[in-house]
Amino acid sequence: MPESRPLRADARRNRERILRTAEIVLARDGLSASMREIARQADVGLATIYRQFPTKEALYEAIVVARVRALVDEARGLADSEEPGAAFFRFFTRVVEDATHKKTLVDALTDAGVDVKAGMSGLSREMVAVIETLLTRAQQAGRVRADVRMPELLALLSAACLAAERGRWEEPLRTRTLSVMFDGLRGPSLGPAPGAAGGRRGPTP
Amino acid sequence: MPESRPLRADARRNRERILRTAEIVLARDGLSASMREIARQADVGLATIYRQFPTKEALYEAIVVARVRALVDEARGLADSEEPGAAFFRFFTRVVEDATHKKTLVDALTDAGVDVKAGMSGLSREMVAVIETLLTRAQQAGRVRADVRMPELLALLSAACLAAERGRWEEPLRTRTLSVMFDGLRGPSLGPAPGAAGGRRGPTP
Repeated sequence: MPESRPLRADARRNRERILRTAEIVLARDGLSASMREIARQADVGLATIYRQFPTKEALYEAIVVARVRALVDEARGLADSEEPGAAFFRFFTRVVEDATHKKTLVDALTDAGVDVKAGMSGLSREMVAVIETLLTRAQQAGRVRADVRMPELLALLSAACLAAERGRWEEPLRTRTLSVMFDGLRGPSLGPAPGAAGGRRGPTP
Repeated sequence: MPESRPLRADARRNRERILRTAEIVLARDGLSASMREIARQADVGLATIYRQFPTKEALYEAIVVARVRALVDEARGLADSEEPGAAFFRFFTRVVEDATHKKTLVDALTDAGVDVKAGMSGLSREMVAVIETLLTRAQQAGRVRADVRMPELLALLSAACLAAERGRWEEPLRTRTLSVMFDGLRGPSLGPAPGAAGGRRGPTP
């Protein structure tokens, strides 16, 4: 896994622990969270944090980039799956789950004036590329309708993420809503023929 | 059509013309639009505007309320349709179209610190009630799957609206994205049986 900046193994472990801890502390305490508290909880020295993250904003941005990085890595792992349909729908679900819980973080960042997009442009391209791989494989396996293209897939995914963030989609709402979208992505339904008012759908084979 | 405040016919016509004009002027000039310019374009006196809308914020809020009011009235008209399925999907599309174009307005209002929700709570309840009528009729006609309930329908609708606003969904993206959602709302697809890797969907009857 290439790092944007080479780090020794212990430095990388420290960095990961700081990011994980900072995310938890930030979610709990919001913007009032201090670097000192994050250092204490992560069990590293304050100087260690400041060496890698000169400002709290740099730390916040790194948290978001790390979350997206983790999603991209997860997608790459799924891209080799022997069940491309399940892999595709699982990843769609994971992205929406992530969006449901990141609202606090993104709100805090926006309030702090942090432009997380700055560090994300390259990562977003990677994300789009791996989503396209998942889509193509699911379509080749006949699990997603062949006429769905990337623009509408990304539109559906961003729609689900925005609404999940805004509406705090928890279970069972998330599963129920996504299952409607997923049925649409699988293909046209067995609806009644046009004009057959009062008709009933046939059972799915 | 009940009005929240009884107005004489000419006062009501003036009010409607002011709102229509203000919406156009606001979309063109943004927040710098002056009440004087709106009065000039609407061909009414400045005093006439101020009598109904004491502040620019009151005018902005009235524009948004009028747009939602118009949507609710449209939904009521569709609720008697002899094609409940077409009526349901048409209204869903109309709401999303409206969201695509209202972004400028909502952004301007938020920048101005206007809380449009204040005037909307009663109207939102009416909107939800009429959407439920459209859903129930479409389900009774077999055009929408029977197991879809209001929470996930509203989740899908708000997802589409948020993404349409944010992403400026224009044609053909809007149609392509909604058609996937609508297929999902019609019912489970004719997907291949689980485990049948490489299987192909059967044709829709």
